[in-house]
Amino acid sequence: MLKNFRTLTICLLFASLSFAQSKHPNLILTKEGVQQIKQGLGKYPLLDKTFAEAKAGVDADIKNGIDVPFPKDPGGGYSHEKHKLNYQNMLNAGIIWQVSGDKKYAEYVKAMFIAYAKMYPTLGVHPEGKNSGTPGVLFWQSLNDAVWLVHAAQAYDCVYDYLSKDDRKFIEDSLLRKFVKYMTVNDSKTFNLIHNHGTWSVAGVAMTGYAIGDTDMVNKAIYGGNKDGKTGYLKQIQQLFSPDGYYTEGAYYLRYAIQPFLVLAKAIDNNQPSLKIFSYKNGTLAKATSALLQMTDASGYFLPFNDALKDKSWESGEVVYAVDISYGSIKDDPSLLFVAQKQDRVLLSTDGVKVAKAIASGKSTPSFKWHSMALTDGPDGSKGGISILRSNETPDAVSALLKYSSYGMDHGHFDKLAIQLYDGEKEILTDYGGTRFLNIEQKRGGRYLPENRTWSKQTIAHNTVTVDAKSNYDNNTKKAEGANAFSYTHFNDLSNKSFQITSGKDTTAYSGVAMQRTLAMVQPEGIEKPFLIDVYRLSSKEQHQYDYSFYYLGSLIETNIKYTASPQMYPFGKKDGYEFLWVKAKGTTNTDNSLFTLFNEHNFYTIVTATSNNAEVFFTEIGANDPEFSLRNEPGITIRENGSDHVFASVIEPHGSFSATSEASKDSYGSFAKIEVIGSNDEATVVMLTSKKNEKWLLEINNGKVSATDSHTVTFDGKSYSWTGNYSFKKVN
Amino acid sequence: MLKNFRTLTICLLFASLSFAQSKHPNLILTKEGVQQIKQGLGKYPLLDKTFAEAKAGVDADIKNGIDVPFPKDPGGGYSHEKHKLNYQNMLNAGIIWQVSGDKKYAEYVKAMFIAYAKMYPTLGVHPEGKNSGTPGVLFWQSLNDAVWLVHAAQAYDCVYDYLSKDDRKFIEDSLLRKFVKYMTVNDSKTFNLIHNHGTWSVAGVAMTGYAIGDTDMVNKAIYGGNKDGKTGYLKQIQQLFSPDGYYTEGAYYLRYAIQPFLVLAKAIDNNQPSLKIFSYKNGTLAKATSALLQMTDASGYFLPFNDALKDKSWESGEVVYAVDISYGSIKDDPSLLFVAQKQDRVLLSTDGVKVAKAIASGKSTPSFKWHSMALTDGPDGSKGGISILRSNETPDAVSALLKYSSYGMDHGHFDKLAIQLYDGEKEILTDYGGTRFLNIEQKRGGRYLPENRTWSKQTIAHNTVTVDAKSNYDNNTKKAEGANAFSYTHFNDLSNKSFQITSGKDTTAYSGVAMQRTLAMVQPEGIEKPFLIDVYRLSSKEQHQYDYSFYYLGSLIETNIKYTASPQMYPFGKKDGYEFLWVKAKGTTNTDNSLFTLFNEHNFYTIVTATSNNAEVFFTEIGANDPEFSLRNEPGITIRENGSDHVFASVIEPHGSFSATSEASKDSYGSFAKIEVIGSNDEATVVMLTSKKNEKWLLEINNGKVSATDSHTVTFDGKSYSWTGNYSFKKVN
Repeated sequence: MLKNFRTLTICLLFASLSFAQSKHPNLILTKEGVQQIKQGLGKYPLLDKTFAEAKAGVDADIKNGIDVPFPKDPGGGYSHEKHKLNYQNMLNAGIIWQVSGDKKYAEYVKAMFIAYAKMYPTLGVHPEGKNSGTPGVLFWQSLNDAVWLVHAAQAYDCVYDYLSKDDRKFIEDSLLRKFVKYMTVNDSKTFNLIHNHGTWSVAGVAMTGYAIGDTDMVNKAIYGGNKDGKTGYLKQIQQLFSPDGYYTEGAYYLRYAIQPFLVLAKAIDNNQPSLKIFSYKNGTLAKATSALLQMTDASGYFLPFNDALKDKSWESGEVVYAVDISYGSIKDDPSLLFVAQKQDRVLLSTDGVKVAKAIASGKSTPSFKWHSMALTDGPDGSKGGISILRSNETPDAVSALLKYSSYGMDHGHFDKLAIQLYDGEKEILTDYGGTRFLNIEQKRGGRYLPENRTWSKQTIAHNTVTVDAKSNYDNNTKKAEGANAFSYTHFNDLSNKSFQITSGKDTTAYSGVAMQRTLAMVQPEGIEKPFLIDVYRLSSKEQHQYDYSFYYLGSLIETNIKYTASPQMYPFGKKDGYEFLWVKAKGTTNTDNSLFTLFNEHNFYTIVTATSNNAEVFFTEIGANDPEFSLRNEPGITIRENGSDHVFASVIEPHGSFSATSEASKDSYGSFAKIEVIGSNDEATVVMLTSKKNEKWLLEINNGKVSATDSHTVTFDGKSYSWTGNYSFKKVN
Repeated sequence: MLKNFRTLTICLLFASLSFAQSKHPNLILTKEGVQQIKQGLGKYPLLDKTFAEAKAGVDADIKNGIDVPFPKDPGGGYSHEKHKLNYQNMLNAGIIWQVSGDKKYAEYVKAMFIAYAKMYPTLGVHPEGKNSGTPGVLFWQSLNDAVWLVHAAQAYDCVYDYLSKDDRKFIEDSLLRKFVKYMTVNDSKTFNLIHNHGTWSVAGVAMTGYAIGDTDMVNKAIYGGNKDGKTGYLKQIQQLFSPDGYYTEGAYYLRYAIQPFLVLAKAIDNNQPSLKIFSYKNGTLAKATSALLQMTDASGYFLPFNDALKDKSWESGEVVYAVDISYGSIKDDPSLLFVAQKQDRVLLSTDGVKVAKAIASGKSTPSFKWHSMALTDGPDGSKGGISILRSNETPDAVSALLKYSSYGMDHGHFDKLAIQLYDGEKEILTDYGGTRFLNIEQKRGGRYLPENRTWSKQTIAHNTVTVDAKSNYDNNTKKAEGANAFSYTHFNDLSNKSFQITSGKDTTAYSGVAMQRTLAMVQPEGIEKPFLIDVYRLSSKEQHQYDYSFYYLGSLIETNIKYTASPQMYPFGKKDGYEFLWVKAKGTTNTDNSLFTLFNEHNFYTIVTATSNNAEVFFTEIGANDPEFSLRNEPGITIRENGSDHVFASVIEPHGSFSATSEASKDSYGSFAKIEVIGSNDEATVVMLTSKKNEKWLLEINNGKVSATDSHTVTFDGKSYSWTGNYSFKKVN
């Protein structure tokens, strides 16, 4: 696999020595696109709406008068928001000029560029830049500068032919080349980063290069600062995406990264079609869009693992680029149109017109289809991944996620083998996501808050096992990003809706502790919702403390744990995230099975879990040591077991319903009596489920070498268990 | 006023000496209604849908086989839910029999009655009845028995002509008369109660009386057990409703009470039209429906004061009765049709057909219109009331409620002068409502939890002032329900959308402390949302501790209070609800104005409040001393002032917006710099507001004798303030 990438890279290197943008505009919007917009206006409602909104925004700014403020404020502050609005309006005005031929709009763009060109050379590093490792000039971080350039380059391209030679010289010399120099030289670190910040940076620089006809800029952007292919755009595609299109930072940051990846691809395709960029690495960019849209909940919000904020959905502006360019330039998949309808706007380009036209002719699907899927992580797919189990393709499905991917760079979490559970659009077992009030100035300028690192990223903040009260990799990002620090796929079989299973392993997060988590979704015939079986095996030569945690939304309405509520709430620990958990109550198990029933809106969820006698159980609430009230005060449960080898086994069952309107409650008790770990060793783990009606099922899991055909026989307590393949699930009475 | 009621009652008494139900059915469904349903089916979609759903439920039960279980379980348990389902299916089957003439349905109802008639005489008090002060027979509380009878009487009426004389004798002797005897004799306390439980009881008894032709039952129900008009249905209407239709238990329980009130009214109107029941007490029942629908948030959920659960809306089944009977038999107001559409079903009766037909012919309004209104409380309107201020009539309005009503009987709260604030459908300053997991068996059989009394009802649980850390009326319901224990309306002027004002007073909740709260909603021209001015005046001859509290949803993103977060969270106090509040942080004011900015979903809300220097401020969270995890862990703020006279004055401003999709935040800072209490005495309170742009406004409030025309001049700190009427609000620079 890797070898192929290298070959392809070299071909591309040779293919790309020269080009020239002979016509303007030719980045995202092209001359052909301008004609298509003209023809489409009045015919395709989504195009009309987008164009009208763009025009309204620009008209308002023309009326109010241009303002290019001195860069001063952090995220959320006036100058920050104004420069963001400016790049959007400049681009829109450039497009409107192309489409309408009304000079007012070209003059607006010109005036804006002249104002920026006059100011830019007078600026130093942004005054709030000290709070960023990578300060910008217009914005507190260079990332925002890059985003500005991605838009401004397109705006410039739109008015290029309108501007006099002198204007162009002034704008290019005083602004664009200086801007690019800051990005490629002063902030070369970001420019050469294999990271979404790097992608924004190369996209801005490449597009400026195309627009002003600077081949060197383009080549540096595509092949890296040294033009050797070791950094730059192509290397980013190679390194950051797996063969399945999984992006190593996760869904939330793919949402952000997808825009420069696809915008630059489109600009390359328009200017250097011979590069066949959309086919690069087996069509990675198309797969990335598909993976992005699949990593969502039933309302299109991105699954919130890693540093995700929970209010971002596929309606975000960046995803408009992904959807429209994918549909227009890669594959006209009608399910993309469903998302485009939700977005309620299109790109003002050939691709956007195609989407608007297809929607106007009724080609959209009536809903989005979600699939069960395992997505590998790592450039060659060998660094674990994530599995998403879905009970069906509709928004009402029960969905579960198992994460056994690599750390995920700067925005990663120490969350090896964590799970999430949804019932339709409801979060049941939740991932906290990141801690940030995006762009709200009062909350530290809208940046990630300190608790993002000290709480959100920590292992205990997740639905997984924390060993010895310490986070994965000793809470050390460098270790977590180390060459050998990754989990791996053990096996997946998501082919059968009545029984789906995924199993991931990790031996790197905790020194001397091997971990394997197997998650199965069982959909019995005639039952509305599936149940899940969670088998988390830990093995070590040493004694350890294993904290198995769940975070949930809703109310805990029943448990069989005998506990004492804390008269005063105290922090669960002092470090690695434990300091942010209040201990609300503490108890101990008193049978070999512990039960927790949750009520969340209209349904019940029961977890029955095999426990040792006298295991400690902590009922927690997030929010200790949070002097700025930045955390959400959500509840959790931690079961603490001690030992060298231990298997946590749980059945997690959505059940029943309650209607406030009719006041009727149904099946508020779960149907399982018991789950037992029959035995576990390096070859296999065998688990038995017993329902309240005394039906029994066996789940047999292969822990050794993966094979769909090998036969296994293991003996526990004198009894033999035999099956073929990686797993077996069968009713035994 | 009271004199008129008495006269009317006496007339009705004489008018009602005899009647006879010569035809069946004739309670809610009549022979005429049966014809109308037959003619309407296939024409009016809502009628079709309701009929089909009723039939599907009955068909399923016929298929499964009738089950009349031995009464055993509390709310939420099987026998409880099954008896509820049975009465619904019996009634529906009776109606279907009438409409379809298919004997299968009559046989089903008959079999059901026979089964109940065989079982009923064998039953004693319900085994779970010990947990209820008023145990039932079929259900743990007699209230549910009454509801059963309200439905069963109608079912019986539907199959009356189908049953043989022997069947009738058996059912009436073994079941219906015994049932009525239990209600009127064994549980005469409930039957004669001026309370919604009493209304259900009299409705069941009266309807049974009509159906079996027992005049005495009817007269007892209408005129009370002693047939003297001192109790019974008419007395309930007199006592429980104010002249504005406000029901003394509040919106949530009016939702529940409205069904028997209107169902019995309809049955009376069909059987004794000469009573003109819908015009009784100036058309109170129509006003009650209107008040009920107005006491909702923008999604139709009932404003959650008193023991309310927040998941009840106008879509509840009881409200279908209210809406359809009001529309069909009282006044065909098209806004009722909007609600009927939301309910998505109609009554199977003349009134329901009329609603379904009107909707089918497009008579519904496109949305519901909410109005600002002051509703008086008390039989003659003299016991205070509630005011609802709305910035406009749409669901997007900002709405505020001031409560200065009487306690509200069993489900009342010690919440004198509490406020609530909504922005569109979002709760901003919240009322906790009741503590109960309705019908969820695991939570104490679905009953009100102990914390309903110990937390929910307490003064500190509300957005009001708690004096000396004690609840109103020393936390004593009897005192709160005493003859002289009520607040009163000071003045209201809701006539002008740019400035609405309400002022309520109370001198009874705290011995020796007079309280007056004035709430104004100011809608400046050209500004999207209004702001509120809250002026809470306390006066006493003694020194007191005044705790001014706010409960909110969302995040506190800014405050100017210097505070220290609690390393361990400890309860705020030991009694009167304080024991349920964790102290998250404690601080002191350090200027004469304290600021709190909240972020709730997409908007910001800033409270600027005049404070003494060094006043204590407590940041709290609900949930201490809650060993069963029954409370919602929501945040609050309490400002503690000490003194004999004190005025709390705040400006509460909704402002700005944040869009996660566009990442744009706007106006995250409020526009007010300061609010000052210029002076306050028995004649007037004068408050000055100052914006950050140094604009100043004066609010002058008359504290003395109410008059719209009296002139006032007061002098504070040597400066005179003059105005005419109860208030004045003016810009002064």
